[in-house]
Amino acid sequence: MKKNQPPIITLTTDFGLTDIYVGEMKGVIFQINPQVQIVDITHSIPPQNLCSAAFQINNVYQYFPAGSIHIIVVDPGVGSQRRSIVCQTEKATFVCPDNGICTKIFEQEELIRAIEITNLNFCLPQVSRTFHGRDVFAPVAAYISCGVSLTDLGSEISNITMLSIPQPKITEDGIIGEVIWIDHFGNAITNVSMESFKSTFFNAKFAIQIAGMEIDRLSSFYNESDVGSTLALVNSSGNIEIAVNQGSASSILNIKVGEKILFLKILPS
Amino acid sequence: MKKNQPPIITLTTDFGLTDIYVGEMKGVIFQINPQVQIVDITHSIPPQNLCSAAFQINNVYQYFPAGSIHIIVVDPGVGSQRRSIVCQTEKATFVCPDNGICTKIFEQEELIRAIEITNLNFCLPQVSRTFHGRDVFAPVAAYISCGVSLTDLGSEISNITMLSIPQPKITEDGIIGEVIWIDHFGNAITNVSMESFKSTFFNAKFAIQIAGMEIDRLSSFYNESDVGSTLALVNSSGNIEIAVNQGSASSILNIKVGEKILFLKILPS
Amino acid sequence: MKKNQPPIITLTTDFGLTDIYVGEMKGVIFQINPQVQIVDITHSIPPQNLCSAAFQINNVYQYFPAGSIHIIVVDPGVGSQRRSIVCQTEKATFVCPDNGICTKIFEQEELIRAIEITNLNFCLPQVSRTFHGRDVFAPVAAYISCGVSLTDLGSEISNITMLSIPQPKITEDGIIGEVIWIDHFGNAITNVSMESFKSTFFNAKFAIQIAGMEIDRLSSFYNESDVGSTLALVNSSGNIEIAVNQGSASSILNIKVGEKILFLKILPS
Repeated sequence: MKKNQPPIITLTTDFGLTDIYVGEMKGVIFQINPQVQIVDITHSIPPQNLCSAAFQINNVYQYFPAGSIHIIVVDPGVGSQRRSIVCQTEKATFVCPDNGICTKIFEQEELIRAIEITNLNFCLPQVSRTFHGRDVFAPVAAYISCGVSLTDLGSEISNITMLSIPQPKITEDGIIGEVIWIDHFGNAITNVSMESFKSTFFNAKFAIQIAGMEIDRLSSFYNESDVGSTLALVNSSGNIEIAVNQGSASSILNIKVGEKILFLKILPS
Repeated sequence: MKKNQPPIITLTTDFGLTDIYVGEMKGVIFQINPQVQIVDITHSIPPQNLCSAAFQINNVYQYFPAGSIHIIVVDPGVGSQRRSIVCQTEKATFVCPDNGICTKIFEQEELIRAIEITNLNFCLPQVSRTFHGRDVFAPVAAYISCGVSLTDLGSEISNITMLSIPQPKITEDGIIGEVIWIDHFGNAITNVSMESFKSTFFNAKFAIQIAGMEIDRLSSFYNESDVGSTLALVNSSGNIEIAVNQGSASSILNIKVGEKILFLKILPS
Repeated sequence: MKKNQPPIITLTTDFGLTDIYVGEMKGVIFQINPQVQIVDITHSIPPQNLCSAAFQINNVYQYFPAGSIHIIVVDPGVGSQRRSIVCQTEKATFVCPDNGICTKIFEQEELIRAIEITNLNFCLPQVSRTFHGRDVFAPVAAYISCGVSLTDLGSEISNITMLSIPQPKITEDGIIGEVIWIDHFGNAITNVSMESFKSTFFNAKFAIQIAGMEIDRLSSFYNESDVGSTLALVNSSGNIEIAVNQGSASSILNIKVGEKILFLKILPS
């Protein structure tokens, strides 16, 4: 971190914005470190949806200053035997339940150290069994931002839980992927990355099939075709996305998360 | 407050997030005190719902650093004769309309001082009759965060408005309570606290009846039973809550705010 | 700006709050200037709705400290030939696509300088064609907040795009306006300002017709009449608004954006 840079703690949860849960977490953090910058990433992860959280945090953390601390709380197992952990990579520190929420991150960045949080001195005096976001993750992240060493939080662990995330399947005919996220605009984001698309198709002709539609090219930007046109493009996270120019692909084409998408090679005839 | 701690102003309103109302309040605050930390608690109090606001602010303010300033604006009487007030307790300062919004707080914490805001020097130059959040409460809170003395804001008052909030009824047979909040997950939070539950039932057997269901035990955490199970537990604010593990109790059991809940003693037969 | 005042960057977008887009922008800003205060104005501009954005930013920026930097991203033309610009007025700096989003501001404040952003050194290393909020506007605003001179960002331009925004029509009989925004409470805000109302009617009698209703007076505040009453008043931005006391005018009267509203002179008989 640069000198004089206030430490950053980000929040990614499925808590929504109608309750006081997020506010309670912020209060706890500021009690411990009043100098911190708290940034809401999103509180709209679909409830208990670990895969969505894994994708979202992986896309966003890379844009934050090195050394940022990311609290991620999508936690259906709160209060059970599931561990609370802190994971450190070169770029960031993640504070979260050990339920695979960081899977996408560790597919591409090396895990330097993982700690199971067992030292209750860095938690709230009373740890509930229903809200570790407030009672464990918020205070632990705040103490880390104050300079508490990770090794003081608990003991190092050698394995962490990884999710089995739906991967696109590369076949002789092309790629079979699926929609993993519908964004606010109704854009349907797939699990097919630009890289796997390029390495499969090079300069070959292709057809994209989804929801009964066929698209035969990648657009460069939304407004490249007429308003209302369906198009495929590489979105801002590097994945193939199906969109409707100034419309909602999800509503218009009736696409939901899990919808299959095929990328087929077209052989020269 | 600790030295060098930027003062905290929190916002709890029924303004929602689609408009610029909250943004206007923040602009006003930063014009007066650029050093302040502004924290959104929630802007999703149901419109004009004073009881909800009273419950929510009471649960959350306790997690903030002592000396924090809490602006609460649920204000159906804005522009009328209702007073604008500042209330001080040992832990916090509340800036709000005098409509009972702080009722739950003063049930458990002593009111040190209440001031009616009458000094227009600490309000915006033009005070509208429709938006005191921006024109009165935001600037007053910002001036307080700069060190302005409460007694400069207006004259002390000896009575403030208190709401009549639905209390659980303790009978010979047990407790009759009601649902006071449905959270983002669909959990139904009741007005029956852990304390009143414990002092009524000790170790006696009990049955909880709500929405045609009967539950005969308190769970410790959501995932204690199978996914989809209905359960009762003590939630993170210390109240009894009806939940469905990884589901929405509100949708599945068709529970709304106001739904009655019975806690019945079961006599040894 | 006052000494020691952290610079303020505000965000007004149509990105919603379910995605990580806003979080990515904040990460980019903090990487460049960790000292900045970021303020969310709203992310709920209806998708691609430039007129709404123009109204909202114009109402809100006036409440922010002089020198604040406002990023506005409602950008259906992202990735096309539309320019990215920085506009400076005496009070503020606006960073946005050149699509007319600042039209209302320049109706009342003088544009000191407009720059087309062409210097890629102040953008992210890879500028996507789908998300200039993150790749262009966020870093440019952050660099401006660090003191980078506007003239280093690109070359000055002499014309910027202006929107044709629906204006109220003043006729012999009165004023014909329309509803331009429905707020969170269901209040219907019109494009008829208090000033044009006053200069048309002075002290004359009038009738307001909208959605089959007729209203013959302006109320001073919401609670002036019974709960459930329909009323017209001057809202907190100085425009005439149709409201229902403690209810939603939009739902109850079935009023949508674009609904016509007539202000008719009533001649002494």
